[in-house]
Amino acid sequence: MKISIIGTGLIGGSMALKLKDKKMTDFVFGIDQNEENLNKALEINIIDEKAKLEYGVKNSDLIIIAIPVDAAISILPSVLDLITENQTVMDVGSTKSGIVASIQNHPKRKRFVAFHPMWGTENSGPQSATRDSFTGNAAVICDQENSDPDALEIVEKVIAHLEMHPIYMNAEAHDLHTAYISHISHITSYALANTVLEKEREEDTIFQLASSGFSSTVRLAKSHPEMWVPIFRQNKENVLDVLNEHIAQLRKFKSALEKENFDYLEELIVNANKIRGILDK
Amino acid sequence: MKISIIGTGLIGGSMALKLKDKKMTDFVFGIDQNEENLNKALEINIIDEKAKLEYGVKNSDLIIIAIPVDAAISILPSVLDLITENQTVMDVGSTKSGIVASIQNHPKRKRFVAFHPMWGTENSGPQSATRDSFTGNAAVICDQENSDPDALEIVEKVIAHLEMHPIYMNAEAHDLHTAYISHISHITSYALANTVLEKEREEDTIFQLASSGFSSTVRLAKSHPEMWVPIFRQNKENVLDVLNEHIAQLRKFKSALEKENFDYLEELIVNANKIRGILDK
Repeated sequence: MKISIIGTGLIGGSMALKLKDKKMTDFVFGIDQNEENLNKALEINIIDEKAKLEYGVKNSDLIIIAIPVDAAISILPSVLDLITENQTVMDVGSTKSGIVASIQNHPKRKRFVAFHPMWGTENSGPQSATRDSFTGNAAVICDQENSDPDALEIVEKVIAHLEMHPIYMNAEAHDLHTAYISHISHITSYALANTVLEKEREEDTIFQLASSGFSSTVRLAKSHPEMWVPIFRQNKENVLDVLNEHIAQLRKFKSALEKENFDYLEELIVNANKIRGILDK
Repeated sequence: MKISIIGTGLIGGSMALKLKDKKMTDFVFGIDQNEENLNKALEINIIDEKAKLEYGVKNSDLIIIAIPVDAAISILPSVLDLITENQTVMDVGSTKSGIVASIQNHPKRKRFVAFHPMWGTENSGPQSATRDSFTGNAAVICDQENSDPDALEIVEKVIAHLEMHPIYMNAEAHDLHTAYISHISHITSYALANTVLEKEREEDTIFQLASSGFSSTVRLAKSHPEMWVPIFRQNKENVLDVLNEHIAQLRKFKSALEKENFDYLEELIVNANKIRGILDK
């Protein structure tokens, strides 16, 4: 089948590489406003041809929208306008309620499958794309009852080829869970970077002393605003809810330290340690 | 030379393995209140003989104290009491002001070198020890003017064998910098784990959705209270100072979201991105 990738960055590029490897596709159109990304994607064989939106969409069996979530929401209705009942459209966005709401009354709604692969890095652009990025991670499909069975089947094939395991949930539940599991980690990491940059004026000392622990906690703070501001905008209520809880949790550490209540501090840490049992299952 | 390792856990064990490999020592005494750790360390050749404190210390050229910082502070004076002017004692603790203060007037002060290797993981115990743990990381020596040149030279040899690069600073500066670079990351990570555990009651969802980003940010939350409560106790003032700044930084994200000031949100993220330039030097 022919595939169009709208947005030839990290996620779109990694998907194209893997789906070619697995021979799910023998021809990929690349669509991107960023000419540099497009040329790079062509050069490293992520795509086979640069295309304008309308041409690529009309000539593909599957269209993958892999651009920031607000841009995806604004482009999706016009993509659905262009396709026939034999074509399928999927996105890869980190928020889902907004995008499914934007097309709920569209006559081609059922040709769209709301998709979110639970993988990403702090890097971006086609040069960061890798074949085995997704292997072993979860892939969420939202509101599957609103997609045609054959469209769903194609996306499930994509998931299998990416070597991911599918999870089904509604868009609201997805946005709530990702606020906990992914979005708050990014805010924490950004705020931690800003804390250190604010307090620690001696940049050389940061560089020299930074251990693997710090680098690991602050890694996500390298993530680009082009992707993340739209996610926070789309998932504002859930993110605020979790952020308030996180600040409350930090205040408990502050209070334990201020009052030199080290039994309480230990209790807080012992509770946090439970995350090991959950993540290392 | 003969070495005593007081505390045959992750750090002490990793040092023993590497110093044996590099033939800096041909015999290591293991001293530990935890008999299980001691037997494990013997079994996997981290140590050559289990010893009582006094016997091990008296029969070693170099004594490495690798136990939680408060225990190190309480044991150090009696270790110095036991040694001659031909022996050297070093610690590996994550806080330094308390330990150097505790022996400032000790007649053997100059046989002690305050040391901190900038490496660790969320794991503990001799079974987690590895040979090449320290390679490429910074090793801090504090208040070197208070140590005898020959004692300092031995510790510098240890650093070279561990394939680390030495950094010299005073104990107060060390404790300030590590509050920024290491201690706050742990509190953030613990608080993030507690946030998710509090808000996200569906443990299976955490497990299924948790992406590499989340795992990376929350990794340090697996770290044990036996090690970390004493560090926070020792470095209380600095940690509180940085924690207050961190909460203030998180409030900026909260305010930007609440007011839907996405330009400000972008500004905060762009600033955080600067950490890339510093860490990736």
